Amino acid sequence: MAATERLVIAGKAYDSRLLVGTGKYQDFDETRRAIEASGANIVTVAIRRTNIGQKAGEPNLLDAIPPSRFTILPNTAGCYTADDAVRTLRLARELLDGHSLVKLEVLGDPKTLFPNMPETLAAAKTLVAEGFQVMAYCSDDPILTLQLEELGCVAVMPLASLIGSGMGIVNPWNLQIILDRAKVPVLVDAGIGTASDAAIAMELGCDGVLMNTAIALAKDPVRMARAMKLAVEAGREAFLAGRMAKKPYEASPSSPTSGMIE
Amino acid sequence: MAATERLVIAGKAYDSRLLVGTGKYQDFDETRRAIEASGANIVTVAIRRTNIGQKAGEPNLLDAIPPSRFTILPNTAGCYTADDAVRTLRLARELLDGHSLVKLEVLGDPKTLFPNMPETLAAAKTLVAEGFQVMAYCSDDPILTLQLEELGCVAVMPLASLIGSGMGIVNPWNLQIILDRAKVPVLVDAGIGTASDAAIAMELGCDGVLMNTAIALAKDPVRMARAMKLAVEAGREAFLAGRMAKKPYEASPSSPTSGMIE
Amino acid sequence: MAATERLVIAGKAYDSRLLVGTGKYQDFDETRRAIEASGANIVTVAIRRTNIGQKAGEPNLLDAIPPSRFTILPNTAGCYTADDAVRTLRLARELLDGHSLVKLEVLGDPKTLFPNMPETLAAAKTLVAEGFQVMAYCSDDPILTLQLEELGCVAVMPLASLIGSGMGIVNPWNLQIILDRAKVPVLVDAGIGTASDAAIAMELGCDGVLMNTAIALAKDPVRMARAMKLAVEAGREAFLAGRMAKKPYEASPSSPTSGMIE
Amino acid sequence: MAATERLVIAGKAYDSRLLVGTGKYQDFDETRRAIEASGANIVTVAIRRTNIGQKAGEPNLLDAIPPSRFTILPNTAGCYTADDAVRTLRLARELLDGHSLVKLEVLGDPKTLFPNMPETLAAAKTLVAEGFQVMAYCSDDPILTLQLEELGCVAVMPLASLIGSGMGIVNPWNLQIILDRAKVPVLVDAGIGTASDAAIAMELGCDGVLMNTAIALAKDPVRMARAMKLAVEAGREAFLAGRMAKKPYEASPSSPTSGMIE
Repeated sequence: MAATERLVIAGKAYDSRLLVGTGKYQDFDETRRAIEASGANIVTVAIRRTNIGQKAGEPNLLDAIPPSRFTILPNTAGCYTADDAVRTLRLARELLDGHSLVKLEVLGDPKTLFPNMPETLAAAKTLVAEGFQVMAYCSDDPILTLQLEELGCVAVMPLASLIGSGMGIVNPWNLQIILDRAKVPVLVDAGIGTASDAAIAMELGCDGVLMNTAIALAKDPVRMARAMKLAVEAGREAFLAGRMAKKPYEASPSSPTSGMIE
Repeated sequence: MAATERLVIAGKAYDSRLLVGTGKYQDFDETRRAIEASGANIVTVAIRRTNIGQKAGEPNLLDAIPPSRFTILPNTAGCYTADDAVRTLRLARELLDGHSLVKLEVLGDPKTLFPNMPETLAAAKTLVAEGFQVMAYCSDDPILTLQLEELGCVAVMPLASLIGSGMGIVNPWNLQIILDRAKVPVLVDAGIGTASDAAIAMELGCDGVLMNTAIALAKDPVRMARAMKLAVEAGREAFLAGRMAKKPYEASPSSPTSGMIE
Repeated sequence: MAATERLVIAGKAYDSRLLVGTGKYQDFDETRRAIEASGANIVTVAIRRTNIGQKAGEPNLLDAIPPSRFTILPNTAGCYTADDAVRTLRLARELLDGHSLVKLEVLGDPKTLFPNMPETLAAAKTLVAEGFQVMAYCSDDPILTLQLEELGCVAVMPLASLIGSGMGIVNPWNLQIILDRAKVPVLVDAGIGTASDAAIAMELGCDGVLMNTAIALAKDPVRMARAMKLAVEAGREAFLAGRMAKKPYEASPSSPTSGMIE
Repeated sequence: MAATERLVIAGKAYDSRLLVGTGKYQDFDETRRAIEASGANIVTVAIRRTNIGQKAGEPNLLDAIPPSRFTILPNTAGCYTADDAVRTLRLARELLDGHSLVKLEVLGDPKTLFPNMPETLAAAKTLVAEGFQVMAYCSDDPILTLQLEELGCVAVMPLASLIGSGMGIVNPWNLQIILDRAKVPVLVDAGIGTASDAAIAMELGCDGVLMNTAIALAKDPVRMARAMKLAVEAGREAFLAGRMAKKPYEASPSSPTSGMIE
């Protein structure tokens, strides 16, 4: 299928609306094969957990996922304060030669991985002032996502459900409000469990979907990566096509009843 | 995506797991363009409503959807008794030169279009005895779908929700029981509203999906047809890939917490 | 709360819209205490599993649940054919001195306990002809429930979900169609798991709810029986009160915004 | 039913776990009759919209809902900043002779009435310092509700869905996390549409439910108030009773299959 329109973040266009993580794979080779099957252009990397050059002599993710082919999106997974997150992304910028597009996540606690929104807002403010292009993982709070946008974030990334839960889109109503108001791209980040979850996110009008566990912990990650690629395209096409109205009852036959051939 | 395995019905293999109807389009040209975009191999036609040769001199659907390229699946939409349905399919067999693969539907009333299952069972018995290969539209009753299979139907086609309702898959539990037991293909027929509905059906393990209204009444039917093609493939791939387990709570981080780079 | 209107089945009025079973309790004393807490007037008894006099010298349920205080509703749990069910209810009529109100259930298989609808229809026909007042456990098929009514059943009892599953009301849409058309009482039978499930059934407009496992297998069955009594009353009152319309979005403040005190 | 345990907020015990508002009724008489039917002890009043003495010579709500019989809970509906909310509650304290139990709500915008959480946190801090006992309307964010608790709020009141929407409990998972962690009472505030919604909130383990529109905009508000009273009691009893486990499939018969009477 020819992509008829592209995802634009911070002025740069991408062919794929599926963004993927790099955690939980068996090895860098499986990571590479899954990411290739996903068709993703943007690949997010947990700077505090993944070697992208900090540890000389150890396997480097960037050998498997070269920045020449992929947009590497450093993230702050594992950070629980604004300070930690800011420090981590400054390090990432150094490691990645001045790269400024980053994914901010400041977590509330290690058990739910729910975002700490006040710390997220504080970190976003600092990072924007330092010239970062901030994509912000956040709750599905329509007031706070708007505040992130006003602070200058280039994208907001509300969770569909808890990170790693695979519970899908629990509250489509909040997402709808966010989508109705946002002027920056809205990407669902966290909670996708299977292909239909990704399709639903796109059908709601989301600009993209970011996922990791749903692919990495599928029985066959490469095949699931392909399923997700198709699902994101399917959901986007369905959104653009404009679905039929739901009619809970009063079913109408598929053909007009007048003029039936008896 | 290369199809790695095919749908087999009555001993014949098909590349696509998406079956489509021909009703509710503006004209035969729109019908043709949507069906081509859907990638469907099997196209179902309401014999009592559509001209496939009964009315000489009027536009013939088979000029737009030629039997040389598509498997035409005559159906009995608009029939409310076993007798009517049997008579209609005998006529179809004549019109289609002995073609024996048919879709049986015997409706309970014109308002819900819910199947009349006793009449469906009666018709299936007669049709199988007369050499038809019967794909049967039915309720999601796991006992009755098994009876249809025992009568010799080559596929069972439970509704996801009412015909033309677009309500999606209301009762996945009944479908699951049917899928766990059936030895013939199970295709969801009726109720699909958008791409994710089709993906969900396939993720449950259905062998295929049949739809009409969701495509024909989308704002852009051709684009929705393409969305449905992708969604059916996405759902099938996700089913084969084996999804991650759902974890409502106790989210686990996308990377192991041991060995974090501080 | 004073009951403002009563449930009428086969011409007889009952104060309570909650019907209960007698299985799965620890002993007849617990059965008695739970049933008293439930406020039920009609108590259903599995004739093939429970001693109501067939076995002289063994504990008799009717000593705990005396027919002088409760309407005993014999049921055919464990029957898989129309013949078995009819035979069982003839026996019940003898044991209960000509009692004619019965609950028919003919099951499809021991694993799902889903009803076998053709056998149920056949048994209903025979039983009505023999003068029984038949309340029929059935699927939520709106065509078949109407056929049961046309055969002369005094109530139809569609399942909410599988017997003993506690999954609640899976398909409210089918129930709604049944309720819109039925002229006999419609009682949800099977699938209730907790109090809100019973309330939802009543809010849909059901005339009553029958349950067993949800009470008997609660940690505190007597307390759950009381919860169910309250829930059925709550749901009925809410149905009669007429709920507010849902407004997914565009929330309106609880008070008019004009004339605010600044 | 005798209440076996009571709701305790800020050291004071209440018989009823249902809290109600006073907006949207036709007149103060209907307000009074509905509130009496609800059995509520705590009645919340929008200080900026309702006359409780600010306007001499106009009808005063406190004549219908006398503070001698009800705990009046002043709220800040219509406030969009922490300053506004604080000012409004200082006024309320004057009007109500030093009454310190208040409901804080700081809204994000007039269209969704979603809470503005940073402003809510700021107001809570000030109000607690000034000796108010603050019950805080909030989003269902488990990190922020904990912060409200740490600031000294005596209860947290997450929304079930948007104020006035009647959409019920959209995200039970977030509520569950909040309930698992909170040491102060958790009351669902906003979004309840009908009786079963209230029962579900209580079954999750909430300490209480606050509602207004669901009662005031029912066709028969007094009857709906009674339904809500019963539903809250039903849900609480069901929670305490401990529901049966859900078994999506593999239904078990209501009685042991061994020892069947043939």
